[in-house]
Amino acid sequence: MRDNLVYKILKSHVIEGELKTGEPVGLKIDKTLTQDSTGTMAYLQLEAMGIDRVKTKKSVAFIDHNMLQQGFENADDHKFIQTVASKYGVYFSKPGNGICHQIFLERFSTPGDTLIGSDSHTPTAGGVGMLAMGAGGLDVALAMGGGAYNINTPKVVKIELTGRLNKMVAAKDVILEVLRVLTVKGGVGKVFEYGGEGVETLSVPERATITNMGAELGATTSIFPSDERTLEFFKAQGREEDWIEFKPDADAVYDEVVTINLDELTPLTAKPHSPDNVAKVSEVGKSKVDQVFIGSCTNSSYEDLMKVAKILKGNKVNPDVSLVIGPGSRQVMEMMARNGALADIISAGARILENSCGPCIGMGQAPGTNGISLRTVNRNFYGRSGTLSGQIYIVSPETAAVSAINGVLTDPTVMDVNLTIDMPKKFLIDDSMILAPAPTNAEVEVVRGPNIKPFPISEPLREEVDGRVLIKVEDNITTDHIMPSNSKLLPFRSNIPYLADFCFNTVDTEFPARAKEHNGGFIVAGNNYGQGSSREHAALAPLYLGVRGVVAKSFARIHKANLINNGIIPMVFENESDYEKIDLLDAFEIDNVKSGLKSGFVTVKNLTKGTNFKAFVELTDKEIDVIEIGGRLNYVKSNN
Amino acid sequence: MRDNLVYKILKSHVIEGELKTGEPVGLKIDKTLTQDSTGTMAYLQLEAMGIDRVKTKKSVAFIDHNMLQQGFENADDHKFIQTVASKYGVYFSKPGNGICHQIFLERFSTPGDTLIGSDSHTPTAGGVGMLAMGAGGLDVALAMGGGAYNINTPKVVKIELTGRLNKMVAAKDVILEVLRVLTVKGGVGKVFEYGGEGVETLSVPERATITNMGAELGATTSIFPSDERTLEFFKAQGREEDWIEFKPDADAVYDEVVTINLDELTPLTAKPHSPDNVAKVSEVGKSKVDQVFIGSCTNSSYEDLMKVAKILKGNKVNPDVSLVIGPGSRQVMEMMARNGALADIISAGARILENSCGPCIGMGQAPGTNGISLRTVNRNFYGRSGTLSGQIYIVSPETAAVSAINGVLTDPTVMDVNLTIDMPKKFLIDDSMILAPAPTNAEVEVVRGPNIKPFPISEPLREEVDGRVLIKVEDNITTDHIMPSNSKLLPFRSNIPYLADFCFNTVDTEFPARAKEHNGGFIVAGNNYGQGSSREHAALAPLYLGVRGVVAKSFARIHKANLINNGIIPMVFENESDYEKIDLLDAFEIDNVKSGLKSGFVTVKNLTKGTNFKAFVELTDKEIDVIEIGGRLNYVKSNN
Repeated sequence: MRDNLVYKILKSHVIEGELKTGEPVGLKIDKTLTQDSTGTMAYLQLEAMGIDRVKTKKSVAFIDHNMLQQGFENADDHKFIQTVASKYGVYFSKPGNGICHQIFLERFSTPGDTLIGSDSHTPTAGGVGMLAMGAGGLDVALAMGGGAYNINTPKVVKIELTGRLNKMVAAKDVILEVLRVLTVKGGVGKVFEYGGEGVETLSVPERATITNMGAELGATTSIFPSDERTLEFFKAQGREEDWIEFKPDADAVYDEVVTINLDELTPLTAKPHSPDNVAKVSEVGKSKVDQVFIGSCTNSSYEDLMKVAKILKGNKVNPDVSLVIGPGSRQVMEMMARNGALADIISAGARILENSCGPCIGMGQAPGTNGISLRTVNRNFYGRSGTLSGQIYIVSPETAAVSAINGVLTDPTVMDVNLTIDMPKKFLIDDSMILAPAPTNAEVEVVRGPNIKPFPISEPLREEVDGRVLIKVEDNITTDHIMPSNSKLLPFRSNIPYLADFCFNTVDTEFPARAKEHNGGFIVAGNNYGQGSSREHAALAPLYLGVRGVVAKSFARIHKANLINNGIIPMVFENESDYEKIDLLDAFEIDNVKSGLKSGFVTVKNLTKGTNFKAFVELTDKEIDVIEIGGRLNYVKSNN
Repeated sequence: MRDNLVYKILKSHVIEGELKTGEPVGLKIDKTLTQDSTGTMAYLQLEAMGIDRVKTKKSVAFIDHNMLQQGFENADDHKFIQTVASKYGVYFSKPGNGICHQIFLERFSTPGDTLIGSDSHTPTAGGVGMLAMGAGGLDVALAMGGGAYNINTPKVVKIELTGRLNKMVAAKDVILEVLRVLTVKGGVGKVFEYGGEGVETLSVPERATITNMGAELGATTSIFPSDERTLEFFKAQGREEDWIEFKPDADAVYDEVVTINLDELTPLTAKPHSPDNVAKVSEVGKSKVDQVFIGSCTNSSYEDLMKVAKILKGNKVNPDVSLVIGPGSRQVMEMMARNGALADIISAGARILENSCGPCIGMGQAPGTNGISLRTVNRNFYGRSGTLSGQIYIVSPETAAVSAINGVLTDPTVMDVNLTIDMPKKFLIDDSMILAPAPTNAEVEVVRGPNIKPFPISEPLREEVDGRVLIKVEDNITTDHIMPSNSKLLPFRSNIPYLADFCFNTVDTEFPARAKEHNGGFIVAGNNYGQGSSREHAALAPLYLGVRGVVAKSFARIHKANLINNGIIPMVFENESDYEKIDLLDAFEIDNVKSGLKSGFVTVKNLTKGTNFKAFVELTDKEIDVIEIGGRLNYVKSNN
């Protein structure tokens, strides 16, 4: 059949559209996951859909982001998610059980299935051959309700791995090499499928590190085959029955092939402030290091931390370094507490954090002023650590551990340690922190704290849409600009009225007040508007503030989908020069909008200037229906 | 000689004044400790004193409060303290090494010596027979410089312990019983000295729990003798040479005696919102529990947590409870990671926090709305947990662990577990996270982040003091009212200009702006002004805002001392009825202040009202000199 892994899964899951590169398809989703910073909103949306129980094979709610709990909001969110999950048939992983992607891999992953998760690193489960994709919370809610997940049929790029990694060279160095070659934009519209003789030299946790950080390529996802090494992992997890062999056809075809020779790789680092700003550790120079963090969903497996323990054993952390380690799951931590490795790590002088995302998402452990921090995480964006002047270098656990001892950035190949890990034949299996849902919907009362506010829902489209220009922004505005995310705002992800007051905060602090004063209106933007994360809060907050449309030179794909999902009209300037002619607070009016949407363009009257301009609206028929009825939730309810 | 323990130490340490109950004396201080939330200011003051090296036997700087590190400020403070400690001859305990009082007890305590620490729970070291007292940061800085620490000669109350604790009844229940009997005001002006046959039944960690929480009695401190049990502890810590036998004379006299029969105690709890709101656990009723926290400087020793591990082993935390455990020190955590007890705790479903103060000081793990949280901490003041509606019950580790399993507040005596702990003959000793200071002052450069601002210093007193009434407040204003402390403000303890904008924030948000607009002036207050913690920030922030004097009906002792230390004149209404005649922004003028201070009263002209009133100024000659020269630091420098 000449099918690669990706097409095998796509073919068996397509329920809408046609598999043709670039064309939209709707996929049946087997499993879902949520985490707590996006999960509260996803479950509020699930509730609003009016269904009784989720329709997926398995859906799991994790708590791993907001674990510092500096006010009542976080514990309230945890309790809300615990009760709403129980009510609707979703498994609940208690706070303390670990990071969603690590636990999903350990306890819930299944080769050949589809998974979407309201977190951009959901592709981690691609390490065992799932087609696992990050998505907006509403998309996850819709999938839990049995709806299709819409993507454009991706190109499939084979990453051909040859040879075998040298000692002290890690899976992290493989994905850093891919990022060096392809850059953070290199994966747009693509799935990366790993193959070649090098695959069998990599364990499942190593493969998962690679697929996890494939997110940084901008890819739809990444995937490995399911083979004998995968079976070993499933056996050790006591889940042999969940394993299937899953390999591409021998004559499978690919859109592109990129070859990486594992033999030739050396320890790499992504320098500040981008995951593709990659260089050889040996060539960067021995910078003095202030902090080292080993953990995050990318590198916190048993195998990763056992290697770290071997390196640290008998050594001491440099007096000027703060080494912090966050195990990925309770399974990892308990096993290392039983076998002495955790004691070795503590003995070396490491600080042990809770099993959670922690410093990777800026939840604590912000480095000092101008602090150099080596981290095994997936992103080193400017400011993400919580310290604007912080210098974050992405490295492997091996590079991190050796550098923590030396106090300077160090190529770990200088150290001679046996890093062979005797992987346990059986992991320590105890799912007691994963709570099964109640047998029926009826017996659970959902507990809703005062910070959990109803989310805004759009209204059906009128024939005439008008309002003032509330903000005019430049090119490349990210979802971080539109709806900033940090440790102060994350606890309010279930409170759109509160969050909305910080909308566009880093660009124009007056925007929320202006939007309220004028009862909503329009956003005018440059190219690539809404790039970055999948957070739908970047659509929900503008919706709450009354934004009815965005006119931009171009849109980022996921944000455009989020706007449509929330009934906000995305419009593209026919002539980019019209952008220049618009000023803040100009009054817009669009007549006959509905026929405009169907025809593919609208005429925008600028009443202030007495001029007109044309804008495209590139929408599928379904998307037009979604906007006309006031968003995806209304659409789903009207079609139930 | 009929001397009790307290007088033995006082007699060998008095360097100013006469030992006579209630009279001021100056004590030689052997050792000091600081933590990071008060330490930055203390070391800034030490620097300002212009000395080369500390003059104590040993001074230690700990990092245990600001461990969440949500911005650069905390890591900068840690680095500042690390470098300034090294420069001035102070030992530095790295973040991650544990809680100051636990580590001081383990590694630095010495019977018969004096200790002051810039933390109110410094009396923990009284468990081995030190006279250990909490003090303001400037007092600690002065002691590091070799100066005397001034207290009023306390009454000595003997707590006669008889019998032996029953199984599942804990040292925590002893101090809760003392609090029940004596209340939170019962210790003012007193030291509690424990004696009687019951003493030898208590281990050093148990004794330390009792002296730690003696702080809640309002006592100057609490103390146990140093005996064979103490020697066991020192031997196990490899510090036999630091031990001396230290017992009261057989015919020692005491001001009062209170008898506690250990046999008769049952598990107790302090209900919301005061440590003396004590009831029997069995009588409170089986309230549903949302959260349990085991840790803090009161109950996080090896012995405490080993008992908890024994209770949890083979059991699971209730699905509706979040159990969080914070070990007291790296020594405790590493030992439990080596012997399997930590694995047992993780297996039960507990969340393991860093070795730090954590939830006890509101640094994370705030309960949910109306959440019931059982905690082994020392204070359950309203709002301290970070959740205003939180219901905090203080309990023993035994009660906490059993209740975490059951999901409801449970008298632990219902559970039959062998809690005999085989205390190790030798603890795991590794001081590698305690950094020795540099050999000389010259070789260290102090690293000072941008959040570390110079602190305000008062100016020499003028003959005429004038200004407007900037705020008029009621009775019982606490230091929490004057200078609020929470997880948002704690990172700014070394930035008085920033903090000052939150001065009196919960009472009158306009105060800082008003003070600045009028170039400072006066505070008018009711009775017991400045009660609560020892934080000198409650004097430093007003000083920064230009406050020159406070006229009150009466002052709390430590805050009055802090005002004097910072050159602010504390005045007491001769006629309390004059309080009523003063309005906000009245203009005051005091002529001939210096002769007024010497005579013991001043006449305050109310220029706005055209009236006069008299106020007492109750100051020693030294205190008059301190105010005249513009505060204690100026005084010390002028006398060097």
